[in-house]
Amino acid sequence: MKELTKFSEILNKKLEQSSFPLEPKGLYQPLDYFMRLGGKRLRPMLTLMGAEAFGLNPEKVAGPAIGIELFHNFTLIHDDIMDAAPLRRGKETVHKKWNLNTAILSGDVLFVDSIKKISEVESKHLPEVLALFLKTAQEVCEGQQWDMDFEERESVSESEYIKMIQFKTSVLLGCALQIGAIVAGASKEDAQHIYDFGLTLGTSFQIKDDLLDAFGDPEKFGKQVGGDILANKKTMLLIKALELANEEQRASLEKWIAKNDAPTEKINAIKELFEETGAKSSTQNA
Amino acid sequence: MKELTKFSEILNKKLEQSSFPLEPKGLYQPLDYFMRLGGKRLRPMLTLMGAEAFGLNPEKVAGPAIGIELFHNFTLIHDDIMDAAPLRRGKETVHKKWNLNTAILSGDVLFVDSIKKISEVESKHLPEVLALFLKTAQEVCEGQQWDMDFEERESVSESEYIKMIQFKTSVLLGCALQIGAIVAGASKEDAQHIYDFGLTLGTSFQIKDDLLDAFGDPEKFGKQVGGDILANKKTMLLIKALELANEEQRASLEKWIAKNDAPTEKINAIKELFEETGAKSSTQNA
Repeated sequence: MKELTKFSEILNKKLEQSSFPLEPKGLYQPLDYFMRLGGKRLRPMLTLMGAEAFGLNPEKVAGPAIGIELFHNFTLIHDDIMDAAPLRRGKETVHKKWNLNTAILSGDVLFVDSIKKISEVESKHLPEVLALFLKTAQEVCEGQQWDMDFEERESVSESEYIKMIQFKTSVLLGCALQIGAIVAGASKEDAQHIYDFGLTLGTSFQIKDDLLDAFGDPEKFGKQVGGDILANKKTMLLIKALELANEEQRASLEKWIAKNDAPTEKINAIKELFEETGAKSSTQNA
Repeated sequence: MKELTKFSEILNKKLEQSSFPLEPKGLYQPLDYFMRLGGKRLRPMLTLMGAEAFGLNPEKVAGPAIGIELFHNFTLIHDDIMDAAPLRRGKETVHKKWNLNTAILSGDVLFVDSIKKISEVESKHLPEVLALFLKTAQEVCEGQQWDMDFEERESVSESEYIKMIQFKTSVLLGCALQIGAIVAGASKEDAQHIYDFGLTLGTSFQIKDDLLDAFGDPEKFGKQVGGDILANKKTMLLIKALELANEEQRASLEKWIAKNDAPTEKINAIKELFEETGAKSSTQNA
């Protein structure tokens, strides 16, 4: 934990130093607000860890670490518009507190700022770091598109789902770690290994999140338990349940998916089906 | 003109080579559509010119030239949302033909792609080219914010207006030229000169556009003449008219600005006031 405290201090110091311009207020005040909503700062921590793992003082990658966090926050601001989400970390989202145009344009300029910070590396590392980051940013956009596409589709396969969450979530974790490793001078092979580790970490994390959404302790989870079930979200649990169900279980699942007027009953019935079909244990072992 | 034809061929060839991925369709088809709407391709031409002016084969900067054009198109897709514009170059805008989410996300991934192309330069030029481009991209966002802010304000000064159009329009022309010059190995001083030339070009172009919007030949202008007048847009003409008007002219201007039920009369009356106050000739000489 001592290590994490040190990382936290490095990030907070750098964040304080990199305040947004004062004008135009309409562009930068929403960003100041959004960044103060906090968050775990997991992604920039990974960049510091990636550097330290290969013997570099993590302070040397504070710039790109913050760049990764700014990029993540840019995607959240735009995703919140696309998901019509009113709240983020218990507070109003930017498009709710201000308006659509502000959320689009402030998001755009945050993206610009994120790349500025990402490029705060020695010139010799810039081409590799930038190419990795841009490939990742493109995949994150593609992941968000797949996610929206899947909402409209009748069925999604397990491998399609895995690819979607990898693009939407995991690749940025891999990228965060690998940027630290590149700047620390890791070999190509080691840099690839640490990227792959980030990819696995992100995917496990997302599947765990799917499980918690249905079976988590409401006191600890912090979000509404059963939210995915009510939204008929094609999570790993639902995909596996539809795959493993016998005829009767499938009919019951389909009946509950179509039913939207009894939320508590729907959550309980579908959770039971997740257990009966073996989807829960299969997801836990995924 | 032979020079322009050569530049055009270089750009078209590079554009053909840099087609978007096929999947996810929902993300990339709108970009394919939007890029095919055409346009003058003025900005990428400037990058080729900037390179040739300092003795470099312009084909060597085809990548960053296309990057500048992609960036410009990204800003158009997002601006069209913010301005609630139904048409662009006579065809449906992305948010109209598809929807809001598509216009946001396809715009975002186009921005990523633009930076990929911008960074297609020799490693030794990358830090300078990238820093210039990111500074410019930030200014373009700030210019769009000022433009939206000015719509809500009662008065805008001439110098505020000039700064807004410089950020929104001119800096990208300067950047386009300077990137060509940097890659061609121009001296810092020369690179700055060509940037300043682009800045002046862009500003003159925008003020000329303000004049054409009121006094242009409807057959040649291609847009509705008087559109800015009907929208009460604080263009150079209106700013100067309000500044130069005597008491009577000002009262008349304010009366017509508030009046929205007689479009043809409004356009004619305000054009007359632009002439009488001397705003037209002062703008022509700006």
